[in-house]
Amino acid sequence: MRAVMFDGELRLVHDQPLPTVPANEALVKIHMAGICNTDIEITRGYKGFNGILGHEFVGTVVECADAHWVGRRIVGEINAACRTCPTCLRGDDPHCPNRTTVGIYKRAGAMADYISLPIDCLHEVPADVTDAQAVFTEPLAAALEIIQQTHVRPPDRVALVGDGKLGLLIAQVLRLPGCEVTMVGRHPERWDLLHRQGIATCRPEQAEGWYDVVVDVTGNPEGLKTSRRLVRPRGRLVMKSTVAAETQLDLTMLVVDEIQLIGSRCGPFPAALRLLQRGLIETAPLITATYALDDAMAAFAASRGALKVLLQMEG
Amino acid sequence: MRAVMFDGELRLVHDQPLPTVPANEALVKIHMAGICNTDIEITRGYKGFNGILGHEFVGTVVECADAHWVGRRIVGEINAACRTCPTCLRGDDPHCPNRTTVGIYKRAGAMADYISLPIDCLHEVPADVTDAQAVFTEPLAAALEIIQQTHVRPPDRVALVGDGKLGLLIAQVLRLPGCEVTMVGRHPERWDLLHRQGIATCRPEQAEGWYDVVVDVTGNPEGLKTSRRLVRPRGRLVMKSTVAAETQLDLTMLVVDEIQLIGSRCGPFPAALRLLQRGLIETAPLITATYALDDAMAAFAASRGALKVLLQMEG
Repeated sequence: MRAVMFDGELRLVHDQPLPTVPANEALVKIHMAGICNTDIEITRGYKGFNGILGHEFVGTVVECADAHWVGRRIVGEINAACRTCPTCLRGDDPHCPNRTTVGIYKRAGAMADYISLPIDCLHEVPADVTDAQAVFTEPLAAALEIIQQTHVRPPDRVALVGDGKLGLLIAQVLRLPGCEVTMVGRHPERWDLLHRQGIATCRPEQAEGWYDVVVDVTGNPEGLKTSRRLVRPRGRLVMKSTVAAETQLDLTMLVVDEIQLIGSRCGPFPAALRLLQRGLIETAPLITATYALDDAMAAFAASRGALKVLLQMEG
Repeated sequence: MRAVMFDGELRLVHDQPLPTVPANEALVKIHMAGICNTDIEITRGYKGFNGILGHEFVGTVVECADAHWVGRRIVGEINAACRTCPTCLRGDDPHCPNRTTVGIYKRAGAMADYISLPIDCLHEVPADVTDAQAVFTEPLAAALEIIQQTHVRPPDRVALVGDGKLGLLIAQVLRLPGCEVTMVGRHPERWDLLHRQGIATCRPEQAEGWYDVVVDVTGNPEGLKTSRRLVRPRGRLVMKSTVAAETQLDLTMLVVDEIQLIGSRCGPFPAALRLLQRGLIETAPLITATYALDDAMAAFAASRGALKVLLQMEG
């Protein structure tokens, strides 16, 4: 089969053997996969991952010991957990210390014709959610993780820092409880979507005042600094993207101002699928381009500084 | 009057004028004051404070426009807030941007014969709480701030790192909801109190495993590192003391492990007084020595590496 492989060098291979499918897994034929910032980071050495990339995808189960799943269109959670350790048993399976992670850690990814996935990770996609919507389930779930972790209340003033693809999803999620939401970004060409949804926008140098909740989605030290500046005393600062290790935060002021800093990662798939089905999240404006898998190298090149670039496996 | 003054140099003065008392304040005759780590830090330049030190105290109101208060024994909250700004109006008065802070920021402290305090800051001490207990109200309130900020549940496994005086109060508070509590410290000679209360103890190098809630009370980078190591994924790390600005935390791992970092400062006085009155908190073992105000310099010298050193104003 075909696969986008990284082993120090990024390339499309044509002779990748089909995955072997353990009894508790399903063989999935991939329809579509998205290129995420994490994929780009992996090609720069993040996590030292070597293998097939890709963890945002939609496909159809073609083989599975559990006949219920065969023929169903699915999206898949990316953390394959052991389901037996204390972490899993208290419901924190995305943090299972024995986990593998699709396309990120010790498990083949979805930028390929086929993938093998634990049955536990499968979620059926409702018929009225298109492939091009469903491929956003994983990042949308990551956006929902914020309101899974901390109570964002309707009167809260919320600022997002970073108008990349994940930031644009988070803004759409945090408007739903009725909050005032302001996007602080550097890409006015992406803001039409936000303005249509009643979300305010400004550039970092214009951002001022205090917010109850601030979400940093920039992944860079300067963005984090802007985010910190915007959090009110006793407010919450959600870190939604990994930042360079050398980044400094003034921990003394964190204590004096009683700020809560909340690291946030993967989230709930079923709620993400419900939001997509209910038409509450716009995904079409987030798609910069769709490439055939055979043009994967061009797709990766195009994803630099773009919003979502998708790979289509057939046609 | 007498006062412990810091103006680059720490000294006891005898000719300090009595405070002038604005209409919304009360003149309080101090009975007793405690020496806190923050006082020591101030003598090393923290906050650039010059003036009378002391923010842990108990006294009696001797003059007040509101006759209700005259003659009452009181403790006082340390943040004098404006009560009119948006921060105050949403109940975050300890964070009022216009605040002064007793003995810490732009307001005279309590290591003196008298202090003037806003009426809003006063709390009457119940008759069955002694002065030597009441003087712990402020740090005990700071300990209670943790369960004011975050929900500590009965089955939670809690670790405290730092067996100083504040740490010993926090341990006593966090045992109250029924949690398993472990104190990680370097002073076994202080642990009897904890063992009596069913709190486990160990040295930092023996501490292992994962805790749901970890409270760092060390104020040093090494302690913070131990604390971070003990937090489970999706756990909470409460920072209860200010640490040197150059301290680093791996923010990427904070995101990957979805840790919540919670800065924590001043807390609720009425609940602290209730705990003292109910006999749920032992304070006597926390007192290393009590000095007359006239011996304040010796008291400061004795407070180095000690638990609580108290100053008594009258013979």
